[in-house]
Amino acid sequence: MMGGMTIPDTSLAVDARRFWSTVMRSGEIGPGKAGGLRRLALTDADKAMRDLFATWCTEVGCTVSVDRVGNIFARRPGTDEHLPPVLIGSHLDTQVAGGKYDGIVGVLGGLEILRTLDDRRVRTKRPLELVCWTNEEGARFTPPMVASGAFAGVFAVDWVLGLRDDDGKVFGSELERIGYDGKAAVGGRAIDAYFELHIEQGPILEREAVPVGIVVGGYATRGLHVDVHGETAHAGPTPMDRRRNALVGAAMLAVAVNEIGWKYHATEGKATVARLVAWPNKAGILSEYAQLTCDVRHADRAVAEQMLAEVKAAIPECARRANVEMRIAGEWQFGAEQFDPGCIRLIREAAERLGVAHRDILSQAGHDAYYVSRIAPTAMIFTPCRDGVSHNEAEHAELDATVPGVNVLLHAVLARANR
Amino acid sequence: MMGGMTIPDTSLAVDARRFWSTVMRSGEIGPGKAGGLRRLALTDADKAMRDLFATWCTEVGCTVSVDRVGNIFARRPGTDEHLPPVLIGSHLDTQVAGGKYDGIVGVLGGLEILRTLDDRRVRTKRPLELVCWTNEEGARFTPPMVASGAFAGVFAVDWVLGLRDDDGKVFGSELERIGYDGKAAVGGRAIDAYFELHIEQGPILEREAVPVGIVVGGYATRGLHVDVHGETAHAGPTPMDRRRNALVGAAMLAVAVNEIGWKYHATEGKATVARLVAWPNKAGILSEYAQLTCDVRHADRAVAEQMLAEVKAAIPECARRANVEMRIAGEWQFGAEQFDPGCIRLIREAAERLGVAHRDILSQAGHDAYYVSRIAPTAMIFTPCRDGVSHNEAEHAELDATVPGVNVLLHAVLARANR
Repeated sequence: MMGGMTIPDTSLAVDARRFWSTVMRSGEIGPGKAGGLRRLALTDADKAMRDLFATWCTEVGCTVSVDRVGNIFARRPGTDEHLPPVLIGSHLDTQVAGGKYDGIVGVLGGLEILRTLDDRRVRTKRPLELVCWTNEEGARFTPPMVASGAFAGVFAVDWVLGLRDDDGKVFGSELERIGYDGKAAVGGRAIDAYFELHIEQGPILEREAVPVGIVVGGYATRGLHVDVHGETAHAGPTPMDRRRNALVGAAMLAVAVNEIGWKYHATEGKATVARLVAWPNKAGILSEYAQLTCDVRHADRAVAEQMLAEVKAAIPECARRANVEMRIAGEWQFGAEQFDPGCIRLIREAAERLGVAHRDILSQAGHDAYYVSRIAPTAMIFTPCRDGVSHNEAEHAELDATVPGVNVLLHAVLARANR
Repeated sequence: MMGGMTIPDTSLAVDARRFWSTVMRSGEIGPGKAGGLRRLALTDADKAMRDLFATWCTEVGCTVSVDRVGNIFARRPGTDEHLPPVLIGSHLDTQVAGGKYDGIVGVLGGLEILRTLDDRRVRTKRPLELVCWTNEEGARFTPPMVASGAFAGVFAVDWVLGLRDDDGKVFGSELERIGYDGKAAVGGRAIDAYFELHIEQGPILEREAVPVGIVVGGYATRGLHVDVHGETAHAGPTPMDRRRNALVGAAMLAVAVNEIGWKYHATEGKATVARLVAWPNKAGILSEYAQLTCDVRHADRAVAEQMLAEVKAAIPECARRANVEMRIAGEWQFGAEQFDPGCIRLIREAAERLGVAHRDILSQAGHDAYYVSRIAPTAMIFTPCRDGVSHNEAEHAELDATVPGVNVLLHAVLARANR
């Protein structure tokens, strides 16, 4: 038998078919309307997936625990239980019109690694923990990545538990309803390292036929909620110069944000108008309230800051034009975090040992890894997806293009855990 | 005693305090959050108000019937029951943040007229019917004035009964739930005339201290629902030139519509961005669907048509700029209807007999009277409201400024009913 604490030879590899069967099984839970998934955080579908995941983890000999914000940890003991664990993870929730791979291949790739180690009776010096983070997408409870953020101390636990969805349902109550209001403390413990595998959500790896992207940095992302306050009035008699239509102010800002994105398009900058709500938002009446949610992203942190400054400059201008008040109701940022050179090196070495083609790559999306990187050495592996499409039911990944990344993850994790 | 079928002398007048006590009682049913009303059509509050109204009408000797779209008719017999009735009416529903007077003073002014005739034992040759139209505001079920429209044959009854609110609740089911799914046929019968009293919803009467506005025409109004179709995609990696964000397209059109309003501001034209919805409308994802509801209004029908043409020209331009598809999903119009010269003359003569100052005025809002005018001679009386404010909880009317209009209505109706 192989095993012990030496670095295993390159013949150690995951069972590709078994791995993909779990991804396909997951793809049946919370079906969308066009072949993808609609598995919003803390819904019945999310509960069904969590239950199955917990069962799978228990079957492979792990101890499953859940923390107060619903993050699930499946722990595989190390030979030295006094050492902090190496974490592997991602998320199992999806967008309202999401795919079967975003987040999911990271968690189920981690599961396959635990199964492979179990089959081959490979023990590691440090414990391993496979994590499923709650509500990564932010599609039901904004902001995104709120539970890994709480784990990293970025958000207060009580604030997270008090978040409400669009129907007024409360995060903490919904956690309780699905039975994932765990007892474990949120974070506050030593973590040796965190590794996350994720589909690229961009076209580069597929285009270049390179199966492994080693994430060396992220697009700096700056997000804003902007509140708009106007006044209700009758849509008929109220003259244009007495109108204070909050919806018009929000629309003006939406157009301005989009134009800022185009201004930086040549250097791959993006600005997104993600969400606009208004109240009363009805025929016959002007809206007294609106909220716009937007973000800007750029590989160069200084440029992202400049884009944000331009959005902020547009706010008073749009408020003046629409004769409304606007104020920033929330701000967030991610993506400029640095991943750990040591963890990145382990990934690169594993890819080279296995003969897997790889390239360095930047992440343009948000990931739980950004928050975890604030408290532990962290690195990410990207795997290809078709046409760079994600957050769309047409999102697609191929097994053959994904497995090399999972094997690289396996060997990088073993190297770290046996250090 | 006075009575019989001669035109009564000018001493016949309503009981102002009794009239106002009904308006104040109505003002307690379905309270808003800032002193006004939130009494949406077919809600529990609407039912409570309807029940009270029906009781009041029964107490004054009327026979109450309800038609299939929930319009309530309180009939006071004439001495010749073979003649078509003279109708008086307006609506008791409000906007989500509405006032205590819009529609309500018209219905309860009519009730006070019936009470006064009953007290003084005045009989009329033709029957009188006091009407409460369902869902005038369109705040819950769009479009507005849908039940008077059905009465006038503009909308099919089954189409009205199938309308859904934002929560998916169905007009017909909600009518049934509150017990106002009446058996009477909708319209299709002879109406001698229709008179509606309403607050002005504009500043002119108050500014000029004139208590009665005789509505001689309306602002031509043209409304549109515009559907926008794009594609969901990830807000991070998707380059600006591959985005098809439906929300951005809708925002562009909203800004364009608002600019068209300003272009015609000098001649009192208005363009309103009333409503914008998008889906998924979430952080992290581009929206694949949006809908914008807007309208344009102008006193000159030809100019209103020009404004509408400009909105329609903006649609393909915005669709091109946002890389989305747009199509008109619905259109409506009102306000260019002509009121009846004979009914207008009766109002003017009544005001002059009573010595009540009056002026001709245009309506800028939609009213049930527009649809009814398509099937019966119709006229409207406006009464003052403070600062022209309506569709706002701060909407306010004074008893002293309102009562002259109710007395003018009383005498105009008597003259018509005894013709």
